[in-house]
Amino acid sequence: MNFISQIAWNSDGLIPAIAQDAISNKVLMMAWMNEEALQATVIEQRAVYWSRSRNKLWRKGEQSGNIQRLVGLHLDCDNDTILLKVVQKGGVACHTGRESCFFKILQDNNNWIAADEVIRNPEEMYR
Amino acid sequence: MNFISQIAWNSDGLIPAIAQDAISNKVLMMAWMNEEALQATVIEQRAVYWSRSRNKLWRKGEQSGNIQRLVGLHLDCDNDTILLKVVQKGGVACHTGRESCFFKILQDNNNWIAADEVIRNPEEMYR
Repeated sequence: MNFISQIAWNSDGLIPAIAQDAISNKVLMMAWMNEEALQATVIEQRAVYWSRSRNKLWRKGEQSGNIQRLVGLHLDCDNDTILLKVVQKGGVACHTGRESCFFKILQDNNNWIAADEVIRNPEEMYR
Repeated sequence: MNFISQIAWNSDGLIPAIAQDAISNKVLMMAWMNEEALQATVIEQRAVYWSRSRNKLWRKGEQSGNIQRLVGLHLDCDNDTILLKVVQKGGVACHTGRESCFFKILQDNNNWIAADEVIRNPEEMYR
């Protein structure tokens, strides 16, 4: 696939991939892709990342069911960051059961506080 | 500052920082911050990144005038990615003169095409 060769992979062969909800426009998460993950994302039309901790492909939602259906794929000016527009199944992207992983906000320029509600019980997601 | 110590910096002492327009909700760009950049961002209430190519602090807009005023700062569940909500001065974040750096979209699952319009002449931005 042609579009793969234009990617400016980092020294580990990875590229950061940001997932944004196509409906709410919330930024849901940031993860990494290698060539195989990016190809799988396009072929399967769902977000497939490369798990750096488990060292294998991570089909988002494979355990929790909270898959991300691909709506659009964007590349930045430097060809080194990807933006995915997705439809987030279940409305939950975060393993804590929240819509977005970015649920901590800086308060009083000093402390991170958890600001978003838990939509789904994490224990139910991963049992 | 307390909140700095909670960040999970990578092995280079950096964290990826995503900037999202607080009004249009567009994802504008992704760059990197070190401790100094994050502190400066909070103190100055504008986006300050760490330029890996120039190896120095990068006060976004220092040349182009397209500064990013800080509206909110978010941290993800793993403490290893930052999301900035910003007001983008001039409505242009990209050095190509477009609103967002993510202006290339994947067409027919094969080719990246430039999809967004150029709002400002890049030559005028950097002269």
